[in-house]
Amino acid sequence: MRDRTAGLIVVGNEILSGKIADTNSAFLARELHGIGVALRRIVVVPDELDEIAEAVRTFRPLYDVVFTSGGVGPTHDDMTIAGVARGLGRAVVRHPEIEQRLREFFRDRINEARLKMSEIPEGAELIFEGELSFPTLKVENIYILPGIPELFQAKVRALEPRLAVDPYFMRVVYTNEAESAIAEMLRQTLAAYPELLLGSYPKLADPSYRVRITLESKDKEYLERAFRHLLALLPPGAVLRTE
Amino acid sequence: MRDRTAGLIVVGNEILSGKIADTNSAFLARELHGIGVALRRIVVVPDELDEIAEAVRTFRPLYDVVFTSGGVGPTHDDMTIAGVARGLGRAVVRHPEIEQRLREFFRDRINEARLKMSEIPEGAELIFEGELSFPTLKVENIYILPGIPELFQAKVRALEPRLAVDPYFMRVVYTNEAESAIAEMLRQTLAAYPELLLGSYPKLADPSYRVRITLESKDKEYLERAFRHLLALLPPGAVLRTE
Repeated sequence: MRDRTAGLIVVGNEILSGKIADTNSAFLARELHGIGVALRRIVVVPDELDEIAEAVRTFRPLYDVVFTSGGVGPTHDDMTIAGVARGLGRAVVRHPEIEQRLREFFRDRINEARLKMSEIPEGAELIFEGELSFPTLKVENIYILPGIPELFQAKVRALEPRLAVDPYFMRVVYTNEAESAIAEMLRQTLAAYPELLLGSYPKLADPSYRVRITLESKDKEYLERAFRHLLALLPPGAVLRTE
Repeated sequence: MRDRTAGLIVVGNEILSGKIADTNSAFLARELHGIGVALRRIVVVPDELDEIAEAVRTFRPLYDVVFTSGGVGPTHDDMTIAGVARGLGRAVVRHPEIEQRLREFFRDRINEARLKMSEIPEGAELIFEGELSFPTLKVENIYILPGIPELFQAKVRALEPRLAVDPYFMRVVYTNEAESAIAEMLRQTLAAYPELLLGSYPKLADPSYRVRITLESKDKEYLERAFRHLLALLPPGAVLRTE
């Protein structure tokens, strides 16, 4: 079975200027990996219509699912709805049901900025999932998510049941050898088990090990055979611990 | 003067699968902003030749300076040198001086994996800057940097003097109003000061304020006038503190 693939478009000058660190990317990457969806690309673009639209045009046909993060609030720099709409060649319209909810919530404090939050790309679907009070917008294969981490995380978790496929199994080997000393054994393991996802991550600042090796597969038996293959190749005493 | 612009290509399956959080992007964003360089786009791609090459082809003509992060070690999944070379239509060759240094350093422990670290896109320049023991690779407008955060940071800091242009000045306003309540005042400030970089960042989890507003300009006088303009528009008692 081909993997389900995903792409993430993060919108925000605040991330490109370093004022706010993007934590949504790492969160989404972990969550998607956990439910067996392969995140294939992340792009961070400024709060500009054409940049967002171009990213949408590029990502939409490449991946099964596309997420956007950020740029959906009430302020002047919130461009994501309009950018997604432009990228898909759709108009921006007010959704009557969201407008109604906003009017009920804000009552006499309603204003144009708040009503901006009722804007959607024409034809977008509202997804009511989990315990969220505000629906998630979906248009074609694009899920439009807010940038505020607490909301982003809640919405991703709520969407997971509809996105999940079969998960990866993982084994980890911690070694006290330098990466360049074991590169050949990793290459041999990968030659024998070409379907394996094999990663090696040197850690300079942590004295407890030198390289963390991760082995992954959706086939648990295959993973265990590859894991034993690698352990047999590594020099005696090189393995500190495994997971 | 037009801003100097930059793009960042982060290479790594480990980031897309959530096994390692990318801290290099946030570091580079802050550093570039501090020296007046506008980071315009970040992309994270897998350890695959075609993905890296395509990102290089897209970014090279768009930005004054392009950085890559990661994928330059000795293992099977280190594809960045070959990917950059392919993106630029150049061959991969061993650099005789780097090869010499590697042979001197590793002596009888030299192997093919270690020699892989002497590979460069043909015609790349070696930059010896700061106190780094290992040079930085530059080819056309692309700086090839390692993914390990300690090394990435040291190399970026060493490159800063050659990249710096005039910096931004910044003012910050912390308010106890909701973003939707002040959106109109932000819009008016931006209408009066169209050159201003204006950001607003709601904080849900921090009870000490509701929205952090940042104002930035390379012109300090212009910034101060815009700052006073906004303060005069905000409702009495809305401003908790400024910076």
